[in-house]
Amino acid sequence: MAQKPSIPKGTRDFSPQEMMRRNYIFDTIRGVFRTFGYAPLETPAMENLTTLLGKYGDEGDKLLFKILNSGDYAAGRSGDELRQASNICEKGLRYDLTVPFARYVVQHQGELTFPFKRYQIQPVWRADRPQKGRYREFCQCDVDVIGSRSLLNEAELVDIVARVFRALGIRVVLKMNNRKILYGIAQTIGHADKMMEITVAIDKLEKIGLDAVKAELRERGLDAAAVDRLQPILELSGSNDEKLNRLSEVIGESETGVRGIGEMRTIFGYVERMRPGLAVELDLSLARGLNYYTGAIFEVKALDYAIGSICGGGRYDDLTGIFGMPDTPGVGISFGADRIYDVMTALELFPEAVNSSTRVLFVNLGPEEEAASLRLLGALRDAGIAAEIYPESAKMKKQMEYANRRAVPYVAIVGSDELAREVVTLKDMRSGEQRQIAFGELARELA
Amino acid sequence: MAQKPSIPKGTRDFSPQEMMRRNYIFDTIRGVFRTFGYAPLETPAMENLTTLLGKYGDEGDKLLFKILNSGDYAAGRSGDELRQASNICEKGLRYDLTVPFARYVVQHQGELTFPFKRYQIQPVWRADRPQKGRYREFCQCDVDVIGSRSLLNEAELVDIVARVFRALGIRVVLKMNNRKILYGIAQTIGHADKMMEITVAIDKLEKIGLDAVKAELRERGLDAAAVDRLQPILELSGSNDEKLNRLSEVIGESETGVRGIGEMRTIFGYVERMRPGLAVELDLSLARGLNYYTGAIFEVKALDYAIGSICGGGRYDDLTGIFGMPDTPGVGISFGADRIYDVMTALELFPEAVNSSTRVLFVNLGPEEEAASLRLLGALRDAGIAAEIYPESAKMKKQMEYANRRAVPYVAIVGSDELAREVVTLKDMRSGEQRQIAFGELARELA
Repeated sequence: MAQKPSIPKGTRDFSPQEMMRRNYIFDTIRGVFRTFGYAPLETPAMENLTTLLGKYGDEGDKLLFKILNSGDYAAGRSGDELRQASNICEKGLRYDLTVPFARYVVQHQGELTFPFKRYQIQPVWRADRPQKGRYREFCQCDVDVIGSRSLLNEAELVDIVARVFRALGIRVVLKMNNRKILYGIAQTIGHADKMMEITVAIDKLEKIGLDAVKAELRERGLDAAAVDRLQPILELSGSNDEKLNRLSEVIGESETGVRGIGEMRTIFGYVERMRPGLAVELDLSLARGLNYYTGAIFEVKALDYAIGSICGGGRYDDLTGIFGMPDTPGVGISFGADRIYDVMTALELFPEAVNSSTRVLFVNLGPEEEAASLRLLGALRDAGIAAEIYPESAKMKKQMEYANRRAVPYVAIVGSDELAREVVTLKDMRSGEQRQIAFGELARELA
Repeated sequence: MAQKPSIPKGTRDFSPQEMMRRNYIFDTIRGVFRTFGYAPLETPAMENLTTLLGKYGDEGDKLLFKILNSGDYAAGRSGDELRQASNICEKGLRYDLTVPFARYVVQHQGELTFPFKRYQIQPVWRADRPQKGRYREFCQCDVDVIGSRSLLNEAELVDIVARVFRALGIRVVLKMNNRKILYGIAQTIGHADKMMEITVAIDKLEKIGLDAVKAELRERGLDAAAVDRLQPILELSGSNDEKLNRLSEVIGESETGVRGIGEMRTIFGYVERMRPGLAVELDLSLARGLNYYTGAIFEVKALDYAIGSICGGGRYDDLTGIFGMPDTPGVGISFGADRIYDVMTALELFPEAVNSSTRVLFVNLGPEEEAASLRLLGALRDAGIAAEIYPESAKMKKQMEYANRRAVPYVAIVGSDELAREVVTLKDMRSGEQRQIAFGELARELA
């Protein structure tokens, strides 16, 4: 007996039940993307390492999965040379969908129509240390529009977020901020170079309190006067309008800051017209890690389950600059399918029908009954109803167990009685209730 | 200016237009799989090399993409050791979906309900020399049922094939054969060990003629008497029934052969009852390369475009034996999405609607018109209609060009006139025809 096979750590098999739930999430997200005119794109799992290296920082470079060159990778190489991955690997697995997207846009710029609106739902790979909730292979769902500075795009992304989570039944809070405002704040207090440090400190306000944040800012090199000037911003409250008005007073000298405030007013105005009453919260402590964001940034959290952000993104001015194509501004967001899956599982939000691949199972009672069942099956399948027959006339108990274990909601029985009267006995597997349905009515009954 | 980025040879980007067409194929195939109660499964891109090695022959082992161990792969290794891929790589990219499926079934046998019906649509990777129509990353669409000997499964797979290609509009010829019959033939002529050689020779009958086939059989070590005994089989013609009857006479001494004949009679009987008149051709020259087939085998070719087989498969008795789990018979087929794509492109079989991600584009004529358009857009999206607005009020020519290049079938114009009268001017981009539609009627008009 061979050893039971296994899969690499940090990777997963997705069972039929998991897949049906995952597909429900992907189909919902994809459906919303489509109604906004976003078109699908896919890029290869493998990219040239020259495309990937240096795009995710030193830490990211280490987390790239590299592919050994095929053929005789060691030919003509010294032992020392073989110790350099760059000598034996030319390709790596994609680490995210953003860099391949930027690479695609640059490579195909001549063929594309701008603004270019694409969505991309594909796995990515990272050689992270596997741990609970962190995998070495996971799926990203990105939606981006590139080649447009219009803030209507940001508002439409807010609408997309609202529609996706309403469709999935997840109550969320959507927070926004703007990198230009963060820069304006840093500039105003005389530390334009410390924008990220300041934001990271502000981010802890809720957790550690005002005094601790002020202490941390001092530690990070801000002088006392600067920290004092920051205080009104730390204590900002009220509606988005009130926050933006107060911000105008405080950072009104920073040209960039003022532009950021204007952008947020425009975006909130659009959102209010598109989805009156939709709650979007301006949260100055929101920073998001990625360095390429230059304008509005987004973050979505579930209201009823603590798991971190389940969607996020922002505007970038120069995503394609890394590949030598400047001035292609864009904005995009990414949905975290794994976390959304966890939220929906915890809150039991998956519709019942998602758990079963088959709506009705025909019990197999022998050749003649089987022949009649096959005709009925054909009609159900013509009508798009997922239906099957147990492939042999096994014991009734075994067949019912099969239906139960696969969570099939209806079992159809065609025995000799039923055959004579041209009816099907249809059993509702949840209630146990049985009814007789005429052959010709079955498709309508199960539709 | 940096060098224009590129992707590894043998890999592909799929543009929005290609993706929409590919998704149409995948959705159609998936839709049929679902109506037969097959459930989705996905396995990781990376498998342990111990899972993959030795499963595809020596040639296959060479074609596996291996993943360099992460971290310090060379630590403690001599230069010579570094020349052994097995010392620096533990994982590889999957080469097909069959071995991962077998691995999954063995690993999860305790949790599965048999018969286990699954479909799997995922990319696979092979370090083949790239050439026209052969890629290093391509998608397989497999459907298998495991844990059942019932020949009804074979018949249902025939039904699946018929439904998929009817839905796609591809006229096909579906050929079947049976490994047991091939074995019976080899046994009958006294060369049970030469089953594959005989089949390969028979396969060339149409191309090189009877005499050349006979010569080749002699070369491959068959004596003259055996070749003579084979002749009636080479010349077999007529209906499936006639062929099977004639075969019975010739190979009736071979128990295995007789079982194969019986299997095909049962399968053809099922098919005739399920899809009366459906043409399935018994073709004794059909062999299919994979060694694990033990019963019926399938092959599908397009009638109107020469490209090799676009779907194929067969029954296996011992797929999971390689992982130490014997006696789990199954049967499955695989659809070749790339070739199906090529056939449909060549024969222009894609429906017009597949080529566009957006059904209607609203021209953007300024803030007031935009506001009205956004309200209409919202209603269209609520109704599931893919709709968008040009994100800024650019020149009309530019916006129309955008619609044209993206193959948007309708353009909606809401100008000041339209605003006053609460109508939309709807332009059919193909005919150039323009009509005015009341705001409230637009969704119904475009549905």
